[in-house]
Amino acid sequence: MTAERLAILAEGLFVDHHAKTAHGVIRYGQREVVAVVDSTQAGRKANDVVPFCDRPVPIVASIGEAAGMGANVLVVGVAPTGGRLDDAWQPALLEGIAHGMDLEAGLHSLLADDPELSDAARAKGVGLRDLRATPSDLDVPRQPGERRAGLRVVHTVGSDVVAGKKVAALELDRSARERGLSSAFVATGQTGVAISGWGIAVDHVISDYVAGAGERLVDEGSTRGELLFVEGQGAILHPAYSAVTLGLLHGCAPDAIVLTHIAGASSLRNYPSLAIPPLKELISLYEGLAAPIRPARVAAIAVNTSALDEDGARRSIASIEDSCDLVADDVVRFGAERLLDAVLAALGKSEAKPSGAQ
Amino acid sequence: MTAERLAILAEGLFVDHHAKTAHGVIRYGQREVVAVVDSTQAGRKANDVVPFCDRPVPIVASIGEAAGMGANVLVVGVAPTGGRLDDAWQPALLEGIAHGMDLEAGLHSLLADDPELSDAARAKGVGLRDLRATPSDLDVPRQPGERRAGLRVVHTVGSDVVAGKKVAALELDRSARERGLSSAFVATGQTGVAISGWGIAVDHVISDYVAGAGERLVDEGSTRGELLFVEGQGAILHPAYSAVTLGLLHGCAPDAIVLTHIAGASSLRNYPSLAIPPLKELISLYEGLAAPIRPARVAAIAVNTSALDEDGARRSIASIEDSCDLVADDVVRFGAERLLDAVLAALGKSEAKPSGAQ
Repeated sequence: MTAERLAILAEGLFVDHHAKTAHGVIRYGQREVVAVVDSTQAGRKANDVVPFCDRPVPIVASIGEAAGMGANVLVVGVAPTGGRLDDAWQPALLEGIAHGMDLEAGLHSLLADDPELSDAARAKGVGLRDLRATPSDLDVPRQPGERRAGLRVVHTVGSDVVAGKKVAALELDRSARERGLSSAFVATGQTGVAISGWGIAVDHVISDYVAGAGERLVDEGSTRGELLFVEGQGAILHPAYSAVTLGLLHGCAPDAIVLTHIAGASSLRNYPSLAIPPLKELISLYEGLAAPIRPARVAAIAVNTSALDEDGARRSIASIEDSCDLVADDVVRFGAERLLDAVLAALGKSEAKPSGAQ
Repeated sequence: MTAERLAILAEGLFVDHHAKTAHGVIRYGQREVVAVVDSTQAGRKANDVVPFCDRPVPIVASIGEAAGMGANVLVVGVAPTGGRLDDAWQPALLEGIAHGMDLEAGLHSLLADDPELSDAARAKGVGLRDLRATPSDLDVPRQPGERRAGLRVVHTVGSDVVAGKKVAALELDRSARERGLSSAFVATGQTGVAISGWGIAVDHVISDYVAGAGERLVDEGSTRGELLFVEGQGAILHPAYSAVTLGLLHGCAPDAIVLTHIAGASSLRNYPSLAIPPLKELISLYEGLAAPIRPARVAAIAVNTSALDEDGARRSIASIEDSCDLVADDVVRFGAERLLDAVLAALGKSEAKPSGAQ
């Protein structure tokens, strides 16, 4: 089997938060990324344009250039609000197929459901991979809130979308593994699945089965580690995505929660008229909704300070620690060690001892 | 076009709460129901077995008998937990097709996706109607919490599943129309759709679009009335279905809420280890979750007292009124008038005046 060499399509959007799939695959993915395709940034390196992308991946102007560099998989690296295939990408996707690339995407509209792409892929003999396609045998949870002794689940939730839930889970998992703990990241969205190679994009699951999908992900995760970091989705007061958030919270039934927040954000990114309540209130809300299924406290706060200078970042983190009486930190800027300490302490305090996790 | 004459399949389950589709279609539906098929109750009348079914529909032992009585549509009248097609029904469904009946069901597993049923239906020239099939163009909400002046939305929510959310919405709508108000019932589940002939089964919608489906249902409802009663789904602390509940609450963004509860219930029907919190706490939780999108108070409580005698019912209702300081009543047993008064009063108190609704 040929090794995968990715080209990531992010035309016009690589610097935008909608390109979070591109950014995540570059920073955390295990596969080689040979190029990003974004003609508006062509000639630069990914990490120069977006420092979070800590690899110097070349940005090129066209699919053809990426093909010339050996790319054999074209990954759709952007996720527009609503998550549908954008007609504007069609020529690029068809060009990728023409160059013999497999296509990979995590959209609600599946590549395989597009007749033009399907026909072209079949004719060329390349694959179409839909990361959001869900298992056909999902159901409601079998044993809500229960699990085998020793297994510990940490869930990252947010004050908004794009607040860093996936990144917090990935960085905490990485730090835990570096400490020799039996830890695993559990992907619940298309970028997470693209990074880790397994998981379920729960926002594409029919709403009756979201909690069941959360339970199944914990079951699958338990074969990979004793300490699971389950990335959250959406936000509990987000007007479009709250269903996903609550179903996943109840389905994965965490032992500890990490709240993520963008420093200084006071209203929702996509709905500026909707305020983010004080973090203490959000913490109570998440804990109150989790408790009836399985009690869990918010153990720490992951703050995204990327818009601030270092002094501002430290002030913002200190202010959040002060007002919430919890450990807070920016896991990308300052590392995940302090948050991991707080999480492990919270797990130690809860009833069962984590097996092998302390 | 031939008038529809329904046979409702509820084999072995007609007296069970899982037959709520059968019960709802008999009590509230506009179509003629010629027979219920349940061999364990054959020879009796629907309203003798289940008083809620206020029509004397004959119960028969077989599909063949129902066909002999002129049935031309076979409705799957039961909804098992998880909502999938049960293999045990297959012979009955094939027999219905053999008798020339259309099949109608509101399951997560679609009739049209079953090759055996599809082939048989095609060969016989009958239709397969999947009430849970969803529009293909759903998306996230366009304008969360906003709507045209005058339109008022009332949403029924529950302390558990099968607590009477649909029934409360239907009875309140009926009472409102009897008072000459421009009112409409908005169906959000398969039984509601079977009753009213339109709507979306939001529990079958992918979780990212549940709120968008709620918004769309309000938009469609606004062409049918100025006062909309949107049936709720699941329950906010239900371990399997809370995602549907919250997405729908945020999507339909009510002006007033009616809480439904089964008198005396202290734990969840399908999860006896999970307690139902005090109703006052549930009310705060629903109001707190609704508020950031569009403020709404719980205006009244619909209590299902069917397991109690009349004295017990009155005592239970009085006790709930007392502890919650809200009007409570059993809309089936005592009528919806008092609850409707409370709802209209609550709407009158909120900022905008309902146009034509008072």
